[in-house]
Amino acid sequence: MSGPRRRDSARPRRSLTAPRAQASWRRVVNRYAPFELLSADEVEAIHRTSLRVLQELGIEVLSPAARTLFKSAGAEVDEATSLVRIAPELVLSLVAKAPAAFRLVPRNPLRQLVIGGRHVAFGLVAGPPNVHDRIRGRRAGNYADYCDFVRLAHHFNAIHLLGNQVCAPVELPANSRHLDTYLANLVYSDLAFHCSAIGAGRVEDAVRMAALAQGTTVEVLATRPAVMTVININSPRRLDDAMAEGLMAMARHGQPVVVTPFTLMGAMAPVTLSAALAQQNAEALFGIALAQLVRPGTPVMYGAFTSNVDLRSGAPAFGTPEHTQANIASGQLARRYRLPYRCSNASASNAADAQGAQETQMALWGALLGHANLVYHAAGWQEGGLTASFEKLVLDVELLEAMIAFLAPPTVDAETLAFDAIARVPPGGHHFGDAHTLARYEHAFHSPRLADWRPYEAWREAGAEDATVRATGVWQRALAEYEMPPLDVSAREALEDYVVRRRIEIGSGEP
Amino acid sequence: MSGPRRRDSARPRRSLTAPRAQASWRRVVNRYAPFELLSADEVEAIHRTSLRVLQELGIEVLSPAARTLFKSAGAEVDEATSLVRIAPELVLSLVAKAPAAFRLVPRNPLRQLVIGGRHVAFGLVAGPPNVHDRIRGRRAGNYADYCDFVRLAHHFNAIHLLGNQVCAPVELPANSRHLDTYLANLVYSDLAFHCSAIGAGRVEDAVRMAALAQGTTVEVLATRPAVMTVININSPRRLDDAMAEGLMAMARHGQPVVVTPFTLMGAMAPVTLSAALAQQNAEALFGIALAQLVRPGTPVMYGAFTSNVDLRSGAPAFGTPEHTQANIASGQLARRYRLPYRCSNASASNAADAQGAQETQMALWGALLGHANLVYHAAGWQEGGLTASFEKLVLDVELLEAMIAFLAPPTVDAETLAFDAIARVPPGGHHFGDAHTLARYEHAFHSPRLADWRPYEAWREAGAEDATVRATGVWQRALAEYEMPPLDVSAREALEDYVVRRRIEIGSGEP
Repeated sequence: MSGPRRRDSARPRRSLTAPRAQASWRRVVNRYAPFELLSADEVEAIHRTSLRVLQELGIEVLSPAARTLFKSAGAEVDEATSLVRIAPELVLSLVAKAPAAFRLVPRNPLRQLVIGGRHVAFGLVAGPPNVHDRIRGRRAGNYADYCDFVRLAHHFNAIHLLGNQVCAPVELPANSRHLDTYLANLVYSDLAFHCSAIGAGRVEDAVRMAALAQGTTVEVLATRPAVMTVININSPRRLDDAMAEGLMAMARHGQPVVVTPFTLMGAMAPVTLSAALAQQNAEALFGIALAQLVRPGTPVMYGAFTSNVDLRSGAPAFGTPEHTQANIASGQLARRYRLPYRCSNASASNAADAQGAQETQMALWGALLGHANLVYHAAGWQEGGLTASFEKLVLDVELLEAMIAFLAPPTVDAETLAFDAIARVPPGGHHFGDAHTLARYEHAFHSPRLADWRPYEAWREAGAEDATVRATGVWQRALAEYEMPPLDVSAREALEDYVVRRRIEIGSGEP
Repeated sequence: MSGPRRRDSARPRRSLTAPRAQASWRRVVNRYAPFELLSADEVEAIHRTSLRVLQELGIEVLSPAARTLFKSAGAEVDEATSLVRIAPELVLSLVAKAPAAFRLVPRNPLRQLVIGGRHVAFGLVAGPPNVHDRIRGRRAGNYADYCDFVRLAHHFNAIHLLGNQVCAPVELPANSRHLDTYLANLVYSDLAFHCSAIGAGRVEDAVRMAALAQGTTVEVLATRPAVMTVININSPRRLDDAMAEGLMAMARHGQPVVVTPFTLMGAMAPVTLSAALAQQNAEALFGIALAQLVRPGTPVMYGAFTSNVDLRSGAPAFGTPEHTQANIASGQLARRYRLPYRCSNASASNAADAQGAQETQMALWGALLGHANLVYHAAGWQEGGLTASFEKLVLDVELLEAMIAFLAPPTVDAETLAFDAIARVPPGGHHFGDAHTLARYEHAFHSPRLADWRPYEAWREAGAEDATVRATGVWQRALAEYEMPPLDVSAREALEDYVVRRRIEIGSGEP
């Protein structure tokens, strides 16, 4: 006998009970040591190369206001090319002003997050133009699906915050749909959320609406951040005008900025991991420095989105071994500057299938071994970010719940070593009915929501549904069981009034 | 913009080329530091508890010969209960005789394995009574499928060795089918393989056939091991007669023994990880001590198969967070004794689906972070070991290939930091055509065999096949492309003659 066999005779014959209650919402702490993919010397070599990039090559900054800020601080600004070159001492002194950790406090203070240190938070997928589920197929993003995703994120306790726009509600006017999505975020969930930072206006609306939801002022929120955003560097080495304006508006309000270069190796960055990381590092530090120029102490995150493309087709790839390595090494870089660290567990699969599961988990292990403090796009990301998938969201929640359980180290003490329990069960016996087992019956093991561990015959007779098919039932049940979090009537009215007023001010037209 | 977008304008429009040639067969080295799940104190606490188990409780040994060996060495043997109690000094002095690493040399010396140190080898699934593929469905194990699995293991270079009987060929007589499976192992592949160790006879046949295939003697093989076996402890605390006889026969021949307690938490071991590891440790050290009693210096492995059951149904579970933790912690224990370490990346899913992918990868990360030297059942294991699956084998090979790529650390030097390449590409440009990219075009990134990274529309038009469906095509192509490794006619004839002669000696009847 070289492998295990099920011991049918010894096994109790109870059938599966109803789906178990999920673990309560809680902040997750990664108590293990970070994984050191690179040596300290290698981290320094990447660091030095990135400083050369900033000093010798510079970043193209398309916002005149941002260029002015850098110029006043002593950076070299070439107005003809819009290139900003910045000396190592300056960039490092600015980066040093950023806090090592901060709290993000949504309208439900029990759902506040610690961003930094050993904490890790999982975010809902953000940004796809499309949505998909097995029943209704693939379709353009829309407000009804948007609200359902927010409900699901609120329902599943493995999700800690909302990303910026789980999908684009394309039937709504483009210049005011951010108001509708903020409203859904604040009404259908009480989690923290990411706002849009394409221009200062969308930031202003986010901060004001967050304040209205909390019955407070934007000034108070400046001391107790409530909304976060991702600022993408348009890699290589370009900071867009709207992104720069959004970043500066966030900083003025004291709200956290996640600076994330999008450095796909072979496309927007060199084909080698070392160089892509050097470019990512330069671009991330540059954006972080800008935030500190606007308002020293602005909470920021070091964002990493370094993966690779398929060089044969140019298609972006995620969850590759290179992506896993990048997620780990980026954490080493973020820690070098004592900055909170954000990355992602993306996948390029077109379906919520085994490829999606493999790629997402490969990236997620990189994120957690790299001590990410925020795993953005953690649940529901499909097709390299082109689709938010209901079934993938469930598969991802299943994975996140398992990882949360893994991150709780086992206890080793006399009670868990349980010499007496070992002694009580005779050779060849079993522990099913032992007192040590029965006392821990409910919570001994992580209980997955999607895994089907029934014998093959029972599974086949019940329809032979694979995990993706079962996931449909899970999100359908979750929506049925969803409970809207309480919100003061006055706050809700204030929010709705704000949206109506701002729509008129913006003069939003057709989508 | 909070997430990445495909840059259609910048992307070359080449279509996918034909499946790429796979990486050549090679030994895999895990160059990263092992993951320390437990503190050194915790490892010692488990160690001490396991020594108490051996000294105070003992192991039930159903082989009189094994009991005699232990008694002569100074252990306390109770013939009434068959319990063998062994003092810490004795067990540790015996375990210390085992080598920290050894080589396993199959008939093709280029496929020899280093078992120990930082090496890691991946084994084909072993033991299931059933086989499954998407075309023919689930069926009892049989010789034709057996041979196809061996061909696939030979074909896919991510697989380093064959486990003991990928499936039971149930149409062949039970008492001689090991001869047929050894013959298939030796004819259809040139990889090392595990033999059956249920009794001494099957071991004798394996060693003799390995010698015939290599044109050498069993005495030579004693100095250059060629076949390995897994000895399961019938947990808790029982060593079967046939297993003990098999173990002793292997040791007499100097062939490696993997001692693997099967300690499912809550069933054959206590419900807590600490106690299950203490029991596993006691049982593994006991078997290893027996091998050293027979022949000091016998190569052995510390085997771990600690996962948990579903306490509601008693069903075994694999790839759980607890299994991942056990795989890591077991590596810490194995290293404490300087023993090569074996574990598994099992799954309990009934299908080659996203559940199977999640569970297998969870367990595999545990194995690799725990510095397993052998990942047994690494490809094709399904239904908690009740079925060998053709599609799961392909999904697993895809994962193993990605992991092998991950285990190669990136190079950080002036060439890969590529400051000049960063400098050459202007802000907002791309690296597709840069010389640094083109020079590395072929081998810059791991190239998966199963992942489909085409745009959604192209994928849908091509049939919208998920990864499991595509896996069918992969194993079908692999069987079509399979090339039988050369084997001397004389060796083949000698093997066939041996099988015929032994069948008659054994007097094998109907299955």
